[in-house]
Amino acid sequence: MTCESPTHASIAQRANERVAYFNGNIVPESEVAVSFRDRGFKYGEAVFDTARTVRHKPFKLREHVVRLMRSLRYLGIQPPLSVDEFMQQSEAVLARNLHLIGEDEDYWIFQRVSPGTADPCDSSSARKPTVIIECTPLPLAARAPQFRDGARVLIPATRRTPPDALSPRAKTHNYLNLLVADREVRLQDPGAWAILLDHNGNLAEGLGSNIFLVRDGELLTPEQRYVLPGISRDTVMELAQQESIPARETSLDLFDAFTADECFLTSTSLCLLPVSSVNGRAIGQGVPGPVSQRLIDAYSRLLDFDFVAQYLNKLA
Amino acid sequence: MTCESPTHASIAQRANERVAYFNGNIVPESEVAVSFRDRGFKYGEAVFDTARTVRHKPFKLREHVVRLMRSLRYLGIQPPLSVDEFMQQSEAVLARNLHLIGEDEDYWIFQRVSPGTADPCDSSSARKPTVIIECTPLPLAARAPQFRDGARVLIPATRRTPPDALSPRAKTHNYLNLLVADREVRLQDPGAWAILLDHNGNLAEGLGSNIFLVRDGELLTPEQRYVLPGISRDTVMELAQQESIPARETSLDLFDAFTADECFLTSTSLCLLPVSSVNGRAIGQGVPGPVSQRLIDAYSRLLDFDFVAQYLNKLA
Amino acid sequence: MTCESPTHASIAQRANERVAYFNGNIVPESEVAVSFRDRGFKYGEAVFDTARTVRHKPFKLREHVVRLMRSLRYLGIQPPLSVDEFMQQSEAVLARNLHLIGEDEDYWIFQRVSPGTADPCDSSSARKPTVIIECTPLPLAARAPQFRDGARVLIPATRRTPPDALSPRAKTHNYLNLLVADREVRLQDPGAWAILLDHNGNLAEGLGSNIFLVRDGELLTPEQRYVLPGISRDTVMELAQQESIPARETSLDLFDAFTADECFLTSTSLCLLPVSSVNGRAIGQGVPGPVSQRLIDAYSRLLDFDFVAQYLNKLA
Amino acid sequence: MTCESPTHASIAQRANERVAYFNGNIVPESEVAVSFRDRGFKYGEAVFDTARTVRHKPFKLREHVVRLMRSLRYLGIQPPLSVDEFMQQSEAVLARNLHLIGEDEDYWIFQRVSPGTADPCDSSSARKPTVIIECTPLPLAARAPQFRDGARVLIPATRRTPPDALSPRAKTHNYLNLLVADREVRLQDPGAWAILLDHNGNLAEGLGSNIFLVRDGELLTPEQRYVLPGISRDTVMELAQQESIPARETSLDLFDAFTADECFLTSTSLCLLPVSSVNGRAIGQGVPGPVSQRLIDAYSRLLDFDFVAQYLNKLA
Amino acid sequence: MTCESPTHASIAQRANERVAYFNGNIVPESEVAVSFRDRGFKYGEAVFDTARTVRHKPFKLREHVVRLMRSLRYLGIQPPLSVDEFMQQSEAVLARNLHLIGEDEDYWIFQRVSPGTADPCDSSSARKPTVIIECTPLPLAARAPQFRDGARVLIPATRRTPPDALSPRAKTHNYLNLLVADREVRLQDPGAWAILLDHNGNLAEGLGSNIFLVRDGELLTPEQRYVLPGISRDTVMELAQQESIPARETSLDLFDAFTADECFLTSTSLCLLPVSSVNGRAIGQGVPGPVSQRLIDAYSRLLDFDFVAQYLNKLA
Amino acid sequence: MTCESPTHASIAQRANERVAYFNGNIVPESEVAVSFRDRGFKYGEAVFDTARTVRHKPFKLREHVVRLMRSLRYLGIQPPLSVDEFMQQSEAVLARNLHLIGEDEDYWIFQRVSPGTADPCDSSSARKPTVIIECTPLPLAARAPQFRDGARVLIPATRRTPPDALSPRAKTHNYLNLLVADREVRLQDPGAWAILLDHNGNLAEGLGSNIFLVRDGELLTPEQRYVLPGISRDTVMELAQQESIPARETSLDLFDAFTADECFLTSTSLCLLPVSSVNGRAIGQGVPGPVSQRLIDAYSRLLDFDFVAQYLNKLA
Repeated sequence: MTCESPTHASIAQRANERVAYFNGNIVPESEVAVSFRDRGFKYGEAVFDTARTVRHKPFKLREHVVRLMRSLRYLGIQPPLSVDEFMQQSEAVLARNLHLIGEDEDYWIFQRVSPGTADPCDSSSARKPTVIIECTPLPLAARAPQFRDGARVLIPATRRTPPDALSPRAKTHNYLNLLVADREVRLQDPGAWAILLDHNGNLAEGLGSNIFLVRDGELLTPEQRYVLPGISRDTVMELAQQESIPARETSLDLFDAFTADECFLTSTSLCLLPVSSVNGRAIGQGVPGPVSQRLIDAYSRLLDFDFVAQYLNKLA
Repeated sequence: MTCESPTHASIAQRANERVAYFNGNIVPESEVAVSFRDRGFKYGEAVFDTARTVRHKPFKLREHVVRLMRSLRYLGIQPPLSVDEFMQQSEAVLARNLHLIGEDEDYWIFQRVSPGTADPCDSSSARKPTVIIECTPLPLAARAPQFRDGARVLIPATRRTPPDALSPRAKTHNYLNLLVADREVRLQDPGAWAILLDHNGNLAEGLGSNIFLVRDGELLTPEQRYVLPGISRDTVMELAQQESIPARETSLDLFDAFTADECFLTSTSLCLLPVSSVNGRAIGQGVPGPVSQRLIDAYSRLLDFDFVAQYLNKLA
Repeated sequence: MTCESPTHASIAQRANERVAYFNGNIVPESEVAVSFRDRGFKYGEAVFDTARTVRHKPFKLREHVVRLMRSLRYLGIQPPLSVDEFMQQSEAVLARNLHLIGEDEDYWIFQRVSPGTADPCDSSSARKPTVIIECTPLPLAARAPQFRDGARVLIPATRRTPPDALSPRAKTHNYLNLLVADREVRLQDPGAWAILLDHNGNLAEGLGSNIFLVRDGELLTPEQRYVLPGISRDTVMELAQQESIPARETSLDLFDAFTADECFLTSTSLCLLPVSSVNGRAIGQGVPGPVSQRLIDAYSRLLDFDFVAQYLNKLA
Repeated sequence: MTCESPTHASIAQRANERVAYFNGNIVPESEVAVSFRDRGFKYGEAVFDTARTVRHKPFKLREHVVRLMRSLRYLGIQPPLSVDEFMQQSEAVLARNLHLIGEDEDYWIFQRVSPGTADPCDSSSARKPTVIIECTPLPLAARAPQFRDGARVLIPATRRTPPDALSPRAKTHNYLNLLVADREVRLQDPGAWAILLDHNGNLAEGLGSNIFLVRDGELLTPEQRYVLPGISRDTVMELAQQESIPARETSLDLFDAFTADECFLTSTSLCLLPVSSVNGRAIGQGVPGPVSQRLIDAYSRLLDFDFVAQYLNKLA
Repeated sequence: MTCESPTHASIAQRANERVAYFNGNIVPESEVAVSFRDRGFKYGEAVFDTARTVRHKPFKLREHVVRLMRSLRYLGIQPPLSVDEFMQQSEAVLARNLHLIGEDEDYWIFQRVSPGTADPCDSSSARKPTVIIECTPLPLAARAPQFRDGARVLIPATRRTPPDALSPRAKTHNYLNLLVADREVRLQDPGAWAILLDHNGNLAEGLGSNIFLVRDGELLTPEQRYVLPGISRDTVMELAQQESIPARETSLDLFDAFTADECFLTSTSLCLLPVSSVNGRAIGQGVPGPVSQRLIDAYSRLLDFDFVAQYLNKLA
Repeated sequence: MTCESPTHASIAQRANERVAYFNGNIVPESEVAVSFRDRGFKYGEAVFDTARTVRHKPFKLREHVVRLMRSLRYLGIQPPLSVDEFMQQSEAVLARNLHLIGEDEDYWIFQRVSPGTADPCDSSSARKPTVIIECTPLPLAARAPQFRDGARVLIPATRRTPPDALSPRAKTHNYLNLLVADREVRLQDPGAWAILLDHNGNLAEGLGSNIFLVRDGELLTPEQRYVLPGISRDTVMELAQQESIPARETSLDLFDAFTADECFLTSTSLCLLPVSSVNGRAIGQGVPGPVSQRLIDAYSRLLDFDFVAQYLNKLA
């Protein structure tokens, strides 16, 4: 059988290869290949979610799997595993891959589901879904300079797909809208993060990241309808409440961004990354700003782990 | 190596299996599987096109490959083969699959390209694209009743993705917007065709099909900006000109549809399929209407083949 | 005088005919006919409201009349009667019609006002409004199966008229937008309820009904700007508060509907009708869901009447 | 039977009363009254059209009836009469009313159709449509000053209902959007004509009138999708072609209006009325402008009648 | 040097001329002239703010200067003075102009900043900003009748510039959108106030004024995103809180305006001006309504000054 | 009198200073300063236009002045000079400035008009407009590298002001929308040209430039409604017709840009500047493309002047 992954790996090599869950079995990653007729390939008709480990333990894995279930429900795909099964298999895949990363490193754990190769025009065709659970090391070194200097955010001209075409709240394999926007931005600044506007001209989200602003001591983030409701985004909202920092979802636009006191991004892997500029205009007086710092501290306490130090330790 | 396609096929079985071009080789379809890290799978970041055969010969193959090139260009993916190479390999794959279908049957020939597994965050990663060329038999029998009775068109509430989010003019593996709309319609009527409205409320297109209306002898079809510019759509526009049927692209809405004299769909596989109703309301006086019939006749002459008869012959 | 209602009814028949208030008098319904020059007929320039009886007594009649007054004010029509007069006449009409329905049945009581036949181009023409108050039996039997099985909601492609064209918050005789949408849906499923999206793609309302979703124990309903603010909708919001069910108005879209735990409709006649599916996709685990049931119970206590049983008793 | 029209008219009075066609009979207008349950009254669910007479003969009556048929088709109402029957009955009603106006006066001839009182929830209810054909004298005197001085056009804030809510191309009894806009304007200037913008901010139409601009010798009028395609609008387009005046449909906005060389309105009754100002800003150098005058002359030749003189003769 | 202001004023005249701060000096107003190459002139690339005096003392001057700073930040113009410097110079200019108005009169104090004449294509050109601080007497007499009779509000067809083109929250010298709308309204009624709708059809703001509605005892004002966040608007919101009047920002449209119990405008110079009609339709039962009166009283207590009397005293 | 321009220039300096027309007189530029109360300064309420010289002679000066007149008309400002007077004064100003540039250099000639200082609230205030006519040398050296390498176009997130807020077809002093977009782009690439999208997501225009695409031999440019109708744009359309290059106005979006064969900008000063990339993606195979070259040649013949060489000669 042909696949673009090398198939002649020696056993020795295999010992250094990560494994993944694939339709019921845990196998070397190089053996995880989907048919070109898989609807996840042909149509991007698939959903995924991704938790991260913190010191080699998954963080909020259940919340991520529950969100995966919601994405499946939106697309009308039957869940092939229960929440508990997804969690167990995720833990199992993780356990077998941990020896491949250093103590100071961590993994993303992805769950992916497509409906398989079933022909939509043929209701008799068996609907055997494709399920993959896999680990990918966090790109700590690549992002370390951003934790030192702050992230640069650029707003592309490409707008986020509106909810009446396809809801941004489901995490699917249809990423071209986000990728096109991301490429638009990276051609100007390879290290920048794209944050798209929604079709009303409000700040929405980037490829896997949510945005927050701080103004007059209040924490603000775009409304849920136009973005993936990030687990880290939820975490930050909860931390703000604990810290008595007023926080709310609201419409935010470029005026808000340019006149904000602080700005940061959240994502599963980033936790919380301060932003130093939006469209080339400096935000606040150096990063992290005071509210961002309080939330970083609270986040670290919640994790019982200094996630910023983990990144900064990878600085060349 | 594990894949959801059967891997233990005997040689005897293989003789009955279709083959496909896969990254330089022609192999049995069951061996065509892409890594789960292929961006075509993870993000639907891939383009495709599809010609059909007419009596076992490809029709307008060059036009389809040229359109594939344009889709690649829009997404910024380097073409892995030239137009001529795509055509040669398509012919080669076809030649090796023709013995598997009857004389009265025909194939779709798909070309698919993704950028492969390259990490977008890692500019040093080799960008080795994934290229697949494959044949799929036309679903003649399934559609035969529609050529007899006319197609039923339903307009879903889901709107076509607007061009400032992702252009409908590129034929990509991001099909969820169209699939969600299609499912919405098929849950009401499994045999219906969805035609989506664009974000302005005008008729746009369906999953792989363009729509035409006839009003007072004039042929009308939605503007190019909001739809994939179908090769069959172009063919019909050219035939109209030959037949001195006035024809133009314009904004069309539900008023136009409900008050049209005739309506039909075009696609590579359908060529031209008359529509008997839109949203449950009969269009015209039976199918095909007179202008539709003239265009069917002209289309058949162009193909030197009665494509309607091919479908009708499959009626149970 | 000619009218399409029979005018040669014998006195015996009259005894079985409902009566209505018409411009100052209470007369048999067959004598209530408006000039073809009435602006309510020519332009749909009229407003109405409708309360229902509960065990033959009007429920929240005052609230309905107050809303009628607001609709009149929006259109700039002078109220021909005071709130109290509308209530008295409504009670009077009801009293004279009650003998025509069974004890287990109930009435809608409609108030309708148009500006009459005055010529808008002629400021001197007398503006004598048309006022009608009438009773219509509730369609208990027709809807009984829906109280047993849950309502099926379909979302049509037709969008609700935007407020800068004509506000959905006034209850007028211009119902074509809602009727066109309703017909679109009923041609697919004659027993389905249409719920339109507004021009932003959010859930709005149906022909006389409001929609609610339940998610994670919270009650959600579309914002008031895009819908008629239903009296039953208000009632449910108040009951939720009494029951300590968190409830709020917010933007809701198809993602919310497809991933909701429960869904129901409210209207004057329905009170609260659980929804079993939206666009053919099952909502929750059977109807009514637990929050819906609590609200049904609270509603019944408020009415001191089991409105669900009234419907179910009419099952054939 | 009660109706707000006087029913005790003496025979002598009757001789001076206009008659109308009402569901198969020609009767005095005072006897034409529709049930309050007629859907044309309750919902404005009805369509109409209106031709005018020129020297007591109907002008383009067939074109108006054909348009009526298209409006019926859009709403899904079965035509109760054929085109020829509508024309015959219209001629008959006209013939019996001509003695009531002067030789220098003319009539509108309206055809109106509603589906009658059938209950939409009850498919068994007989669908007996309501059909009315009636004559109304043209308001020549009231408009005479505008033919002398030019019309004043005001653009209200209210936008024309968008086609994905309800198409402006069907002439229905749902006139509130146009009436609300008209009232908005008349409260500022009782003699002004409202021309609404569509939801894109382009000039659309007014209550029964189309707008034209002249710029650099070219005739421009809004695109058909957003307006009722007026018969007089079509007539002017044809006259322009005969007169070799370049003419086309296009998007037009306030910049176009304010910088136009000439502007005029068309409608069945107006034929062509020059506009002297838009939003209080003078258009051109006095009315009618040269292109307008050429079209007035051509229109008069087509009618073989000086329609402007007919209006001006009514100046007090 | 030539300027359209008279330059040959005698010293005697000068004693009666107001002075202004201009780039570091306080000079007679007639000497304050900017180069035609000043970007504030060529492009309207400038920001301003304006406080008013109350009995010759500035009110909330700091708040106005802080808002000026935010406008500068949005446009990326470096503040040429600090907040304190702007306040000091404003006080200084005021002090030197007070002798020119009566005790019963008051001033606007404007701060204006442009980037000066620097060529945007030439990064080497020195960026020397233009700074002007000036006093203008409040137009008390002109507005006095409106405090007696209530303001008339008209809604123009022109929509407020959307935030993704240019944010209405910065107070800049680009006023054409507001001026065009204002002129549209004043050509109908020279004494009327224009309140524009935003691009969603909601009430936004007028040229320098915010709008409030009162409905069922609750105070409502448009959301901040589409309007300049007025200092007086903030003041009224704070006073409402003190007075226990429920108040919130929300989407408001013409339905809200026409059915409101009360309506008023706020601005720096007006403080709070009751509105008697919107689009010619009376609001409430005479001005000021009870909630408006309570807020006027509270405002006067805050100012320790009867601002309404100041206006009314100027009635001719 | 104080002004930020130096006022103590010696006579010797004056001989090297350009002059300008200012309200009736020709004076040194340093004496052209407008009151801070000029509405052109306070509100950007002013219009301008600009022709260029070709070998020291104005090109299409009349066309530019006619367009100025149209801009005045849109804003309702009375033209202070006739077309001929504007042309004469422009020629006169030019004649007196020509000695200050080299033979191989050329000028822009600007006409600017504001309504002066009249108070809009005070109809009695004299409306004395401000009129300025001035010369500015073309930035030949700064742009020379772009004529060698092609221009880089970037599409900002900021959208062009929609026509129902303020028409882009009038050339006014309200440039902030364009400046904000331009700055957004220059912060990424100081040498790039911003081309904004309109509110529908179509390509519109940049700060003073129009965009053209070439696809399959056809010339395409955005529709006039959303852009300033450039004189150079018109010139190119006329040249295309002469050269038998098919050309039309149409909606164009990023798909069109990315898949175009050629792209170029036009403006008064540029004439025609080839574009090498849009959003960092190369357009075509090197600049100028073949159609662009044909149009450059035709433009040069029309001018009888090699405008490209003029730029290239300034390369350092």
